[in-house]
Amino acid sequence: MKIPVGILGATGMVGQRFIQLLEDHPWFEVSWLAASERSSGMTYAEAARWKLNTPIPERVAKMRVNDAVPDGTPKVIFAALDASAAKEIEPKFADAGCAVITNSSAFRMHKDVPLVIPEVNGDHFKLIDQQSWHKKNGGYIATNPNCSAIGLVMALAPIHRHFGVEAVFVTTMQAVSGAGYPGVASLDILGNVIPYIAKEEEKLEEETRKLLGELRNGAIQDASFKISAQCNRVAVEDGHTESVSIKLKRIAKEEEILEAWSSFRSRPQDVGLPTAPKRPVIYNSGIDRPQPRLDVNHGNGMSATVGRLRPCNLLDWKFTVLSHNTIRGAAGAAVLNAELLKEDGYFH
Amino acid sequence: MKIPVGILGATGMVGQRFIQLLEDHPWFEVSWLAASERSSGMTYAEAARWKLNTPIPERVAKMRVNDAVPDGTPKVIFAALDASAAKEIEPKFADAGCAVITNSSAFRMHKDVPLVIPEVNGDHFKLIDQQSWHKKNGGYIATNPNCSAIGLVMALAPIHRHFGVEAVFVTTMQAVSGAGYPGVASLDILGNVIPYIAKEEEKLEEETRKLLGELRNGAIQDASFKISAQCNRVAVEDGHTESVSIKLKRIAKEEEILEAWSSFRSRPQDVGLPTAPKRPVIYNSGIDRPQPRLDVNHGNGMSATVGRLRPCNLLDWKFTVLSHNTIRGAAGAAVLNAELLKEDGYFH
Amino acid sequence: MKIPVGILGATGMVGQRFIQLLEDHPWFEVSWLAASERSSGMTYAEAARWKLNTPIPERVAKMRVNDAVPDGTPKVIFAALDASAAKEIEPKFADAGCAVITNSSAFRMHKDVPLVIPEVNGDHFKLIDQQSWHKKNGGYIATNPNCSAIGLVMALAPIHRHFGVEAVFVTTMQAVSGAGYPGVASLDILGNVIPYIAKEEEKLEEETRKLLGELRNGAIQDASFKISAQCNRVAVEDGHTESVSIKLKRIAKEEEILEAWSSFRSRPQDVGLPTAPKRPVIYNSGIDRPQPRLDVNHGNGMSATVGRLRPCNLLDWKFTVLSHNTIRGAAGAAVLNAELLKEDGYFH
Amino acid sequence: MKIPVGILGATGMVGQRFIQLLEDHPWFEVSWLAASERSSGMTYAEAARWKLNTPIPERVAKMRVNDAVPDGTPKVIFAALDASAAKEIEPKFADAGCAVITNSSAFRMHKDVPLVIPEVNGDHFKLIDQQSWHKKNGGYIATNPNCSAIGLVMALAPIHRHFGVEAVFVTTMQAVSGAGYPGVASLDILGNVIPYIAKEEEKLEEETRKLLGELRNGAIQDASFKISAQCNRVAVEDGHTESVSIKLKRIAKEEEILEAWSSFRSRPQDVGLPTAPKRPVIYNSGIDRPQPRLDVNHGNGMSATVGRLRPCNLLDWKFTVLSHNTIRGAAGAAVLNAELLKEDGYFH
Repeated sequence: MKIPVGILGATGMVGQRFIQLLEDHPWFEVSWLAASERSSGMTYAEAARWKLNTPIPERVAKMRVNDAVPDGTPKVIFAALDASAAKEIEPKFADAGCAVITNSSAFRMHKDVPLVIPEVNGDHFKLIDQQSWHKKNGGYIATNPNCSAIGLVMALAPIHRHFGVEAVFVTTMQAVSGAGYPGVASLDILGNVIPYIAKEEEKLEEETRKLLGELRNGAIQDASFKISAQCNRVAVEDGHTESVSIKLKRIAKEEEILEAWSSFRSRPQDVGLPTAPKRPVIYNSGIDRPQPRLDVNHGNGMSATVGRLRPCNLLDWKFTVLSHNTIRGAAGAAVLNAELLKEDGYFH
Repeated sequence: MKIPVGILGATGMVGQRFIQLLEDHPWFEVSWLAASERSSGMTYAEAARWKLNTPIPERVAKMRVNDAVPDGTPKVIFAALDASAAKEIEPKFADAGCAVITNSSAFRMHKDVPLVIPEVNGDHFKLIDQQSWHKKNGGYIATNPNCSAIGLVMALAPIHRHFGVEAVFVTTMQAVSGAGYPGVASLDILGNVIPYIAKEEEKLEEETRKLLGELRNGAIQDASFKISAQCNRVAVEDGHTESVSIKLKRIAKEEEILEAWSSFRSRPQDVGLPTAPKRPVIYNSGIDRPQPRLDVNHGNGMSATVGRLRPCNLLDWKFTVLSHNTIRGAAGAAVLNAELLKEDGYFH
Repeated sequence: MKIPVGILGATGMVGQRFIQLLEDHPWFEVSWLAASERSSGMTYAEAARWKLNTPIPERVAKMRVNDAVPDGTPKVIFAALDASAAKEIEPKFADAGCAVITNSSAFRMHKDVPLVIPEVNGDHFKLIDQQSWHKKNGGYIATNPNCSAIGLVMALAPIHRHFGVEAVFVTTMQAVSGAGYPGVASLDILGNVIPYIAKEEEKLEEETRKLLGELRNGAIQDASFKISAQCNRVAVEDGHTESVSIKLKRIAKEEEILEAWSSFRSRPQDVGLPTAPKRPVIYNSGIDRPQPRLDVNHGNGMSATVGRLRPCNLLDWKFTVLSHNTIRGAAGAAVLNAELLKEDGYFH
Repeated sequence: MKIPVGILGATGMVGQRFIQLLEDHPWFEVSWLAASERSSGMTYAEAARWKLNTPIPERVAKMRVNDAVPDGTPKVIFAALDASAAKEIEPKFADAGCAVITNSSAFRMHKDVPLVIPEVNGDHFKLIDQQSWHKKNGGYIATNPNCSAIGLVMALAPIHRHFGVEAVFVTTMQAVSGAGYPGVASLDILGNVIPYIAKEEEKLEEETRKLLGELRNGAIQDASFKISAQCNRVAVEDGHTESVSIKLKRIAKEEEILEAWSSFRSRPQDVGLPTAPKRPVIYNSGIDRPQPRLDVNHGNGMSATVGRLRPCNLLDWKFTVLSHNTIRGAAGAAVLNAELLKEDGYFH
């Protein structure tokens, strides 16, 4: 008997990834779909402009798309809504007692809402206990980070744990799938770089510090390091590549950093969560790696791949990190959050 | 009566740009071409795999390609050779009394060889007086920077002049034309980012400091700031985009930096060199600019376009700079060097 | 004293090309702009998302965008509207006495409306005399073909004139700029081919036959050959490439076809219309030509480039033709139509 | 106990696909690798520039690369050599008693060499009995078609069987991976179409007729229809898309053709060969399908996807077909050939 789950925003790019990733999931089964009014009442196959290279699961193709109202819905809801829609809709579901496990940015920085990468700060889920919905009827909102923050933080977490991060520079080269569909116009990106993504630098800077922060006395104390981000869009379909420089509190040798990455394991690996990659962080020693085309799918798209660790003239170390922006950086992130929440007793 | 010039490495991508840019040049006329042995004796049209979107000038198409030997060649030689070939061949031409104005990296960091962007450090040409060839028979080697350094330095120079640069972070997203032809394989770059370009980070770091250095007592004193570079290849045809962060010695307001850029003029503009852009640095205030597709050809490919000036959490300011890598970053750079050398009396 | 002209649909991709091409036009000057209500009252710079790689002409940037109403507008109107908007708006301007020279498909196949490529069937403009608007007050609608028809017809016309075309197969590989902006989503075309463009095959088939038809007794008799088209979208910015096979009525030798192409001249060339290319059809004998990247801008984007003429196993001959879809295939086509209309006395 | 197999040309793109596809194959195990002299003695990981997005299988990574000499090699050899190398090397292996199952074009059109798609003309393998090597010691050469022929023939075969094909027009849009590595230069294909692939049109035309020919009295009688091909390269990584028009001997209704495709099964499906797709030909009824990005991996890259069946003005029907050029069109084709050869008793 699998746990029935619903998907808010099921027709968009992240919604499609939810459906793809939850097909054959050992614990969860999609039993309810919602999207915008335009789609309401249509079958999923009619409503969605499916853009993945595996077919729509047949069972889901025939399901009806519902209005985004918490009425007889499953108690576990994955959400892939625009921030503005999420702001309005997600609290209604939490208020109705649902576990809203969301990829939206709307509540990520809210003080009572956990922003979690299971390998990094799964203990932040305890914030849920403070949510008024949770006290009332068990409902809550739990979030995963922005697609550009997730790869960076996975690479930083093992280093931060051992050596303390003191400063971070990051320049991203982000894939077009991060902008949804239709998203980036082809005339804007063919043979081009766009050196701007709305609100992305701000999210990347603030979410990184919350994710690597500590839960003390019921509040997250953001990590104290400084971080400066520059975000660019490039002509890549899937996979955000990031050039990173870091300053550390304690001196770290090259081997020590490599060891920190390669030995990095956490609860998702220890308890064997279904979506957890065996190796959350993979170091590729190739001189020109990681690359989206070659490395984005490692760990079924759930591993971050790092490479090119070398000294920095200005800070201490430089490296490149790559992660799959719609799997590890969106739908897969939420599914793994759900798995850890279940493991930690947050499913009722 | 135009000055006859020769081109070493005439069949490659930069050689082709030389031919395109020198067609209809008011001062210079291509009268001699050389390439590798394979091409020797063929007409240029037969030897070159022409990759520009204007036709081969008819006069040049019929010219014979010579061996790279300084025998009855013009006294002004533009060079577009691989570093290893340049190391061997360029001194022979200088020794034969030729002005070798080269895009190659072979001698850029040599202490007696000027590495020049005319708007930035044209006074460094005085190093030529120290070259033994020059003393002997007037020959010399003068170089322009790497394609990734040139846009950065054009953006930094006006700021450095007014406020003093203390630290620089730069992450590049470089076009494939910078790798020559055939250069980057399509399988390596379609839908991909390659986070590595051989020797590029080193060149970018060391050339930037020499270019912004000062000539004192017959030697270049490199600029003292620290610089850290990360270089990436992206699926762009022409135009290197760079995300830059800088720390300044003196506090600068946003308007002051914008003013430094927009008012930046130098000898090439003052004396009206034919290839000099009216505005060496153009600030584009669009929220998502500069972009290769839209901005790479400004000033006939000789202007650097900057945008997105904003505060940096770690250093002082962040911005993006774009320049055309095979015009301002290669052939056009050498042509402008030649024009300033002529203006400054280095043509005999 | 230049002739003042207006542009309907000035903010779209074709509208932008009109503005670019009419800047510095010797006969015409843009004096009035209209776009959708959303843009009304804004300056052009505010209203347009400019996507060309030359800047907005300064004079135009400051012009106000008007409602699309024929009230005190210039008497010459270039139109770049969607077919549905054109159907409603263009007759109003014709009815107000304007020469509506349009790129829209709305009236192309109307029996009294000329569909013209000046080099091919300029005599079809006589249809204007039959338009009721023209009889009333001199207003009329004159159209140019679809961007995919224009290159094909330019390649076919000299052959048809000499040898008679009996059957045509054409498979197109069309650039994204043909779909306007935002047009094709990047997720749909990066690393992809889309084997469908709405209504394109129908337009290409029917327009080709009208263009190569004859005006007899006040009506166009379509060319009688059969034509079958398959249209694909590819990841190219500008330039439609077409693989063509043809059957001829009379036997033609290879040299005769090449001669027909290279000697092809028509009234626009004879009278020296400003936008007419010297060579409407250019044969490139390179084994792998024409190519969009190398050949799309020949004749300032107004020439069609053909190549690879070779025997066909099924019909008689095969070849490839390329033309610039937003210059020769859209805005430039209309400008050249306007020039011929003026030359032929259709401007009052 | 799996059957040991060797790979000739193991380091190239098709060689890499062999290794990827044979990993975990239920019948075969790679036990020997050969490549050019340059690689000899190196481990496979050192010798190959691996370009697939799954890692090199660990066991293979450590294997030594051998010279291409049939000395103690496995009796089953997969070959992915250049035609010129194949011409020389493959007969040596056949002469040494090996089953040479090759993707090379060198012997495809030889009268005693079978050119086979298992679903289409598996009976042609009987030609092997006539090969002198086979008579001598059991060795032979068996080939699969060119990557552009295979999708076309899979789409044609069910129609040809039921209605008889009388004429075929095909225009291809081929992926860059078909050209090997480094293959197509990025400067040649970014934002471009190349309307030429050396010898491709000839191969496509002649192989199609041999594949759909009949074995009579120990010789293949080529299918008698006429076929005309035009081949283009586009900026796609994997997947050849082809626009096809056909004339049939007997009248076929739309539903009949759709039924012919959907019901198409053959020996590989009947006997359950491991690499055989359940559905060799999949019809996608979407208005804009098939597309490489969405459809290339169906049937693990072994299915051909067709779409857009519609009447043709010139012949009878038009449609689009897509197939994976390095799986179904190369390595997967050879593996499936090997499976059928084993099934048919051609392994000793």
